[in-house]
This record gives sequence, structure tokens and C-alpha cells, in this order.
Amino acid sequence: MSVTIEDIRQAAARIKPHIHRTPVLTNESLNQQVGAQVYLKCENFQKVGAFKFRGACNAVFSLTDEEAQRGVVTHSSGNHAQALALAARMRGIPAYIVMPSNAPQVKKNAVAAYGGQITFCEPTLEARESTMESIRLDTGATVVHPYNDERVIAGQGTAALELLEDVPDLDVILAPVGGGGLLSGTSIAATETKRGIRVIAGEPEMADDAFRSMQAGEIIPSVDPKTVADGLLTSLGTLTFPIIRERVEQIVTVSEAGIITAMKYVWERAKIIIEPSAAVPLGVLWEKKIKLNGLRIGVILSGGNVDLEKLPW
Amino acid sequence: MSVTIEDIRQAAARIKPHIHRTPVLTNESLNQQVGAQVYLKCENFQKVGAFKFRGACNAVFSLTDEEAQRGVVTHSSGNHAQALALAARMRGIPAYIVMPSNAPQVKKNAVAAYGGQITFCEPTLEARESTMESIRLDTGATVVHPYNDERVIAGQGTAALELLEDVPDLDVILAPVGGGGLLSGTSIAATETKRGIRVIAGEPEMADDAFRSMQAGEIIPSVDPKTVADGLLTSLGTLTFPIIRERVEQIVTVSEAGIITAMKYVWERAKIIIEPSAAVPLGVLWEKKIKLNGLRIGVILSGGNVDLEKLPW
Repeated sequence: MSVTIEDIRQAAARIKPHIHRTPVLTNESLNQQVGAQVYLKCENFQKVGAFKFRGACNAVFSLTDEEAQRGVVTHSSGNHAQALALAARMRGIPAYIVMPSNAPQVKKNAVAAYGGQITFCEPTLEARESTMESIRLDTGATVVHPYNDERVIAGQGTAALELLEDVPDLDVILAPVGGGGLLSGTSIAATETKRGIRVIAGEPEMADDAFRSMQAGEIIPSVDPKTVADGLLTSLGTLTFPIIRERVEQIVTVSEAGIITAMKYVWERAKIIIEPSAAVPLGVLWEKKIKLNGLRIGVILSGGNVDLEKLPW
Repeated sequence: MSVTIEDIRQAAARIKPHIHRTPVLTNESLNQQVGAQVYLKCENFQKVGAFKFRGACNAVFSLTDEEAQRGVVTHSSGNHAQALALAARMRGIPAYIVMPSNAPQVKKNAVAAYGGQITFCEPTLEARESTMESIRLDTGATVVHPYNDERVIAGQGTAALELLEDVPDLDVILAPVGGGGLLSGTSIAATETKRGIRVIAGEPEMADDAFRSMQAGEIIPSVDPKTVADGLLTSLGTLTFPIIRERVEQIVTVSEAGIITAMKYVWERAKIIIEPSAAVPLGVLWEKKIKLNGLRIGVILSGGNVDLEKLPW
């Protein structure tokens, strides 16, 4: 049973007291640059600096009291780890976070600052999963996967729901795709709310597993991809792929240069900080592989977590 | 005759169709960091990326049709030049901008992009003023000074007016001070709108002419100051000083390190781009030379024009 629009509406009500309702910004220079009316849904202003807080929050607050008291567990070195730690702290329950020992210190610190209980492991997928499983068995904690989880997908869909409340007459919604949690939730929220709306994803050329999976009609995982959009390295999941295949019009790949150009433009003109992954759907507008001229386009800016000491230009 | 609250209200009505009503943002981490409730008035999202557009716009749209058709003229290498060029273009009149020949190319390009007609001169104040005067005599254009102009002061005051509409129960408003256009307009808008509100300015230690002028009771110009807050190099004017002396509680100086720390914190946590000058009043909260704990504090973030290739950290 897949995620429904009703699940997303319930998620929106459930997480409303805990999240930021993020603003939708517009920018005249940007509109002129890309030849369309662009509405930026600013999840870079969300708690923990990324949309990930929505899904984690929905998962944590969906638990029964009995489940909740045993805590939640995940393995992640990214925004999901921080998001789950903060959501768990808000509910007053433990969050067990498995991180590879070579994760950047700044990420370890951030998870710890949100109260996450970190267990380090070898930096392999096998070690991460076996460490997580052993914590789950010890504690009875509920596993919350970063994207292949219906509660997470429903939570991520709430950003598009808000966007369409604020700007109902969009022609297109653009979102980035990594594991597909945001994209699948967005596609359900959009297509069930507004007849005829088009949902299009941007994906880095250098991590184009979703593009290739759509072509092949089956999940083709990416193998050790390298891209500046480090939030989009993961591959589609068994829950997200069927939703995306059914509801997303197409996936458009974006070059590394296109990502960086779009990112820098938004910093310079819109004066907001977005991370490279958030610039990927904007790169679709820059590179013009598909024609979107003159349309009203909502863009989910996925996050704003950037190392200011290492900018990509 | 000084600027009145009525002048500021009229300016607000006059410029309303042309400006952005900028949002007021809050950030929980920032509040915890500084121990106060902080309301950020985001003039970094204003047209041309700075509050300067308000004053320039009010000046341009205050002109009679007869005056307007002869255009406006100023000398500036900064945000005021861009602001005046854009305001003039909106009214469909010429803007003559005198710039020193050594101004950064990016600033020359920006003024030209807004339709300003640039005349280059030697990089001395004398050359700038004499070049401007000769253009004025040739064209009959109206001079619009960056801050020592009542129409400009009234326009700058509209930011505080909006801030107090959105957050009426502020205890304090903090603004930066350079030439004093923003600070004098802010102080009139605030003290005439809300009894007992405190207006406090932040000024770079390295360009502390306003601080020293307040101590001395007369204008003491700064001599070739050097600070990362390059929007605050100018000295108080004959119109702005008396207003500031009457209505501003005190001017607090901020170290270069304090400016940069506050700026980077806002980039990292609030995910918005502010220029060093905008971080100066935040630096007041960081360095805690004066006690503002627990208060509700509005901060005018003056702008967001930063060279992303040359960040100060």
C-alpha cells in the first residue's frame, strides 16, 4: 500500500506544531534569467536547514507511546541524522544514530548537539546496516530510513502541499532526486492536489541513477557517484521508485557546472544560502534541455547546509 | 526643518508600488546565541540588495514632472548608485552617476545594467564633486545625495516603519551607522511610532566617526577608515547628525572580528546572505558591551551585496 494524499495531509497536521512553515520567495532577476515565473519554497530555512526534518518529524510523531519510548534508530552521515535527532529530542525519546567513523567532524558535532546518541562504525554499507540492526535488537528502537519509509515520504510531501496552498496556480513543480523521498512525496502531493500539474525532477549528471532507472523501468543503483550535490548520492528505493515512475513526468540531468552556476546566482541575487543539491532543479531551468518558458514553476529548495570554508567556486 | 514622521509615512505610501516589502525573519539558534528575541528586517532582499533603494526611490518619485524630466545625478561607487539608477529607470528619467575610474568593474556593470549613465572621474572627492556639479549645470538634473538629503532620510525610515507594523512590541531597534541616512530615518520612525523604544547603532571600531561625534557633540569626520564593513566608511552629515544626536540612545562600536563572526553565524544558521555592514548591529549583540538580555530587538539588516569570491573568513 503506497502513500496517499490523505497520509500527507495527516502528516501536515501532525508536524505543524514542530516545523517551520517556510516562506515562498520570488526574484525578478531570476525570473528574467530563466524566462519563467519561479516560486522558491525555502526549505533551506527549515529546522536543521533542510526538508529532511519534515519526514523525520512525521515518523517520530507517528509512533505509539509504547514504540516511542524505545526510541528511533538510523544510519546516516547527513541531514537525516540531524533531523531524526532533533525530532526525537522534541518528543523526548532517544535517537540512536549510526555514523561512519570518517564522517566530517562538523556533522558529528551537529548530531550530538541535537542530542543524538552516536555509534561509530566502519565506513561501509554493511557495517552501517549491521551496527544499526544490533542497536535495534538491543533497544527495540524503530528504524527510520532516510527515504524508503512511508512516514518519511508522507512528511516530505508536506512541503509541496504548503507551496500549492501559497501559490495554487503552478504549472510545474521541480524537485531534486536522490533516494526519492522528497520527489515521491512531492509528486503525490502535487498530482493529487492539482489536476494537470507537471512534476519534474533535476538530478546530477554525475549521479544519474534515477534517470537511468526511469529509462530502464527498474532500479539501477548508482555506483560510487561523485557530484558537488552531495545530498543526492543515494539511489532510489523500492518504495520511492514506483511512485516516481507513476507520477513524475521526467528526470532531467544537470551538469556540475550548471549546478554551481545556478547555486551562485541564487546566492548573489536572491541573497539566500542554498546547498548544491538545492540548486539541481534550478539547473534544469538554466540548461534548458526541456522547454519551460513562460510557465509558473515552483521549486523545492531542499536545504542550505554548506561548508562556508569550502565553496564550490 | 528636519524630517518628520509624516514625511516618512508619505514616503512609505509613495514608494510602496516600487519596493519590496521585505520579510522579518527570526531564528531560534540566533536568539539562544545572543540571549534575546531578535527580529531581522531583511533589507538584503530589497531591490538592488540594500535599503538604499528606499531613499533613492523616495527622492526620485518626490520630484515634480518638470524636475524629473531633467533627471537625477549623484556621485557614488556603492549601493546608492545602483539604487538611484534603478529608481530613475522606473520613473523613465535619466540618472547621471559619477563614479571614480578605479571603482570595481562589478559595480560599474551593475550601475550600467540598471540604465545609469556613468561618467568616470579621478578617484578624489574633489573630482567627484566637480564632475557632478558640471553635469548638474549641463543637464539641470537634481542632485540626490546618498544620505544628507531629507527625501533620502525619509525613505530610509520606511524600513523601521514596516518592521514596527510587523512586530509592534519591540524594546530596541538596532541599525548600522555610516553616513547616518538609515539611522536617522530609523530613529524618527521608531521614536515617533512607539513611546520608549530605544534606538541603538552599531559602528565599526575601525570607522568610529559617529561614536566620536556623539562624544564630542560635533561632527568629527573619519579619515581614510579601513573596515570590512565597506558600506560604513562615510561620515555623518549635517542633516543626519542632529537627528541622531536627539533620538539615538548610543552608538556601540564593534570589532572587525565581531562583525565577521556575526556575519558568518547568520549565513550558517539563518541561511541568508548579509554583507559585513549588515552584521555590525548584530555584532553589538555578540560583543555584549551593553546589556540587552531578554529584550525584543529589531535589527535592520542593511544589505546583502557581497563579493562571493572574496569572503572575509
